[in-house]
Amino acid sequence: MGKYYGQMMVIQQEVGDIHGALALMGWDQEVYMPRKGAATRGRQLATLSGMAHTRFISEEMGHAIERAGSEELTLDQQVNLREITWSHKRAEKLPTSLVKALAETSSAAIEVWMQARANNDFPSFAPWVEKLVKLQKESAEAIGYENEPYDALLEEYEPGASTQDIADVFEALRGPTVDLVQRIQNSEVKPRTDFLKKTYPVEDQRRFGVMVSKQMGFDYEAGRLDISPHPFCTHMGVQDVRLTTRYAENLPAQSLYGIIHETGHGLYEQGQDVNHEGTPRGQSVSLGIHESQSRMWENMVCRSRAFWRYFYPKFVETFPESMQGVTEEELYAAVNEVTPSLIRVEADEVTYNLHILLRFEIERGLFADVYTVNDLPDIWHAKMKEYFGIEPPDDRSGVLQDIHWSHGSFGYFPTYTLGNLYGAQFYDTAKQALPDLTEQIAHGELLPLREWLRENIHQLGMAYRPKDLVKQVTGKALSADYFLTYMEEKFGRLYEV
Amino acid sequence: MGKYYGQMMVIQQEVGDIHGALALMGWDQEVYMPRKGAATRGRQLATLSGMAHTRFISEEMGHAIERAGSEELTLDQQVNLREITWSHKRAEKLPTSLVKALAETSSAAIEVWMQARANNDFPSFAPWVEKLVKLQKESAEAIGYENEPYDALLEEYEPGASTQDIADVFEALRGPTVDLVQRIQNSEVKPRTDFLKKTYPVEDQRRFGVMVSKQMGFDYEAGRLDISPHPFCTHMGVQDVRLTTRYAENLPAQSLYGIIHETGHGLYEQGQDVNHEGTPRGQSVSLGIHESQSRMWENMVCRSRAFWRYFYPKFVETFPESMQGVTEEELYAAVNEVTPSLIRVEADEVTYNLHILLRFEIERGLFADVYTVNDLPDIWHAKMKEYFGIEPPDDRSGVLQDIHWSHGSFGYFPTYTLGNLYGAQFYDTAKQALPDLTEQIAHGELLPLREWLRENIHQLGMAYRPKDLVKQVTGKALSADYFLTYMEEKFGRLYEV
Repeated sequence: MGKYYGQMMVIQQEVGDIHGALALMGWDQEVYMPRKGAATRGRQLATLSGMAHTRFISEEMGHAIERAGSEELTLDQQVNLREITWSHKRAEKLPTSLVKALAETSSAAIEVWMQARANNDFPSFAPWVEKLVKLQKESAEAIGYENEPYDALLEEYEPGASTQDIADVFEALRGPTVDLVQRIQNSEVKPRTDFLKKTYPVEDQRRFGVMVSKQMGFDYEAGRLDISPHPFCTHMGVQDVRLTTRYAENLPAQSLYGIIHETGHGLYEQGQDVNHEGTPRGQSVSLGIHESQSRMWENMVCRSRAFWRYFYPKFVETFPESMQGVTEEELYAAVNEVTPSLIRVEADEVTYNLHILLRFEIERGLFADVYTVNDLPDIWHAKMKEYFGIEPPDDRSGVLQDIHWSHGSFGYFPTYTLGNLYGAQFYDTAKQALPDLTEQIAHGELLPLREWLRENIHQLGMAYRPKDLVKQVTGKALSADYFLTYMEEKFGRLYEV
Repeated sequence: MGKYYGQMMVIQQEVGDIHGALALMGWDQEVYMPRKGAATRGRQLATLSGMAHTRFISEEMGHAIERAGSEELTLDQQVNLREITWSHKRAEKLPTSLVKALAETSSAAIEVWMQARANNDFPSFAPWVEKLVKLQKESAEAIGYENEPYDALLEEYEPGASTQDIADVFEALRGPTVDLVQRIQNSEVKPRTDFLKKTYPVEDQRRFGVMVSKQMGFDYEAGRLDISPHPFCTHMGVQDVRLTTRYAENLPAQSLYGIIHETGHGLYEQGQDVNHEGTPRGQSVSLGIHESQSRMWENMVCRSRAFWRYFYPKFVETFPESMQGVTEEELYAAVNEVTPSLIRVEADEVTYNLHILLRFEIERGLFADVYTVNDLPDIWHAKMKEYFGIEPPDDRSGVLQDIHWSHGSFGYFPTYTLGNLYGAQFYDTAKQALPDLTEQIAHGELLPLREWLRENIHQLGMAYRPKDLVKQVTGKALSADYFLTYMEEKFGRLYEV
């Protein structure tokens, strides 16, 4: 190993270890931390974020990166150098004070958001969104961008993507999506969903969800499942991956698909090459690719007809009372009900991207100074009416529903829609590579797919940037066609449209 | 605030924040971390420990400490300067590589210990004890000591105490303790304990324990209770204090007194002055003083006749079946049964210090090169026979029972016995200051005692070093007499000896 490359990697590993600690602190804050611990936790998060940043942008690191370029490097080492150089250039533009301010403000804002959501009180949360937007505007200006500030934020989550790319994606999706939604709404086929509102004991929901995630190949000796108000997946290492979900006794599909979705993320993390842990080569490449894994498992695999062929009897066995008289076909149709709704995380596959479109437009507008934070509830209402024909009765089920802004994560939402498209395109390739895939799923054999994803996507870490990864895996550039075709086929058949 | 004092405190706060993260990582490792996460966690703990150490012994810190001495300081600031100077002098003698090696080795050793204890396999654990003893010998040599290496280790946990002090304490305790144990063993009074081996549902044990700890004044909005193989208390801040206990369906006293003991520690942490959080002035002063709080609550308060006057009916109500036909007096006698036993954490008050004596002698011998690690099982057996007249059937209930050595914590055990003595001496003073104390306890009013402890001990942080604190609070130097008198009175009456 080259001397300077080695020096660079020592610092990279140290910074990675701090990020591991930060991940645990973030996880704990949302899962187990007692309420009054928030202020101190915020300070600790800020201190450690600042330390990681300072170390990463240190002169020593800059020096090592610069010299490592002249050393002879393996392919893996080249990947690490390329990605570390990119992150370093980006990071050194951000003053440590800004990084600390963001960590500290967002840590406090999470608590405010939780209270505000519980109390349906947007005005108490608004000043915190204001602060975070201001800080992220500073970030964007410091980092620089080609066309608009939002570009700089987006790139953090989806390297190589621009605001215009996202706008193009929505341009391709919007028309066919709105059309499909209308056809479905006009269809006479209405799945019965009454039974999904009956009583499903929480402990049984947990057991069933864990069983499915184990069948998907999630390793519970290298991970766990807990409860949090907003489901998420985080990791302290390749062999320490944490999922969360939430339970309500009369919403069994919410917890189940929450677990499956986060397991999709978790498999991506557990599938990294442990020998490259803490380095870009052993790290997920973008949030869009991440979301392709969670959405593929959640929707394409586990909301498929084949999935319920195997799991229906087990579901009936677990919940005999509430499932009495419900057929396999009815269960399949119920978990695929399409209906305009208020809450993104509960949205069906068809309307989901419209929820993202709404958020993308709002964020883009905030960062282009077209909207102010105080406008948000009104804008939210107007756009809900325009895209869904419905309006939230309160801000709790409107502008306050998502945790992202309290994290200061602007530019994150669009990666969900990218994930849907990547997911459909990857799944199309997987089906060609595994001709028996549907049959396997119908027998509860989910491991062949996990193995294929592991080999073709997970194990690659950041070897390819997202746009290149899609080409590498599927042979084609990203296109909305796969997703649109998938939707047409599935929902055309389900709703007879 | 003086300029250099301010600089010193900025670094102190940063180091404190890293220690907060380390506390969380340690807590998680024993409570929730998935098994395979251990290796990465070990590396992360080592990195962060090393960073805290490097920052603390930095030239910048040394410089600030040195200059702060010439500035005008308040009394609180003088405490901080005094203690930071002491820790800094000690820390700068330890190479960062040694600090990291200790963190990394102990993190791995904990996992080995857990396995070894489960499998009753001391040989698999022995090489790790060997490594940790070797590293701690290096520490002792680096730090320096007056008489023997063990002094240097002891001082870490009990500033101002020497190996000879501890030897003197045991000299005063040993004779009267052995005599009392013999009298009790010869007594015809034998409390019935059959009912404490009946079935006590775990969830009810938890509820009862939480109820008692709330009554003691533990704030669950600033703390929590979880499960771990070995009960402990740790904190990420004054308002984030974590307790653990363990449950067995037929051992209700184990979980209850585990919770009470750790709550005693937890109240000391929650009682610190939050305005001084992260500084010596807002920090517990020593493990001996810490243990005085846990042991006082566990034994002097919650194993007292008055305690059960109030809690007996509630206990009966919670466990009606197993408590059927058991009188208040019988319950009181049962939780105070004195009998030579194998496991320290289950030992009664009278024999407890003999468990510590055994460990103290072993540790002292290890560090004076009188014993080797491979001798430990045999030495353990021999000393158990000598002091207790019994021998463990296996190493699981012998040399493998405690977690401390896997942490590399040598010199820690003696603080338990110091705690018993400090506790008795403090409690004697508290009873004089609160003439109605016994009556209050008999009415379930535990807050007056907590308030007295908070005001006279907790809130002082490190204002006084342990020896001075005892004088400050009780007007006298530490003496074994209070503990011996307390034991004679309580157990003399119970066993009619």
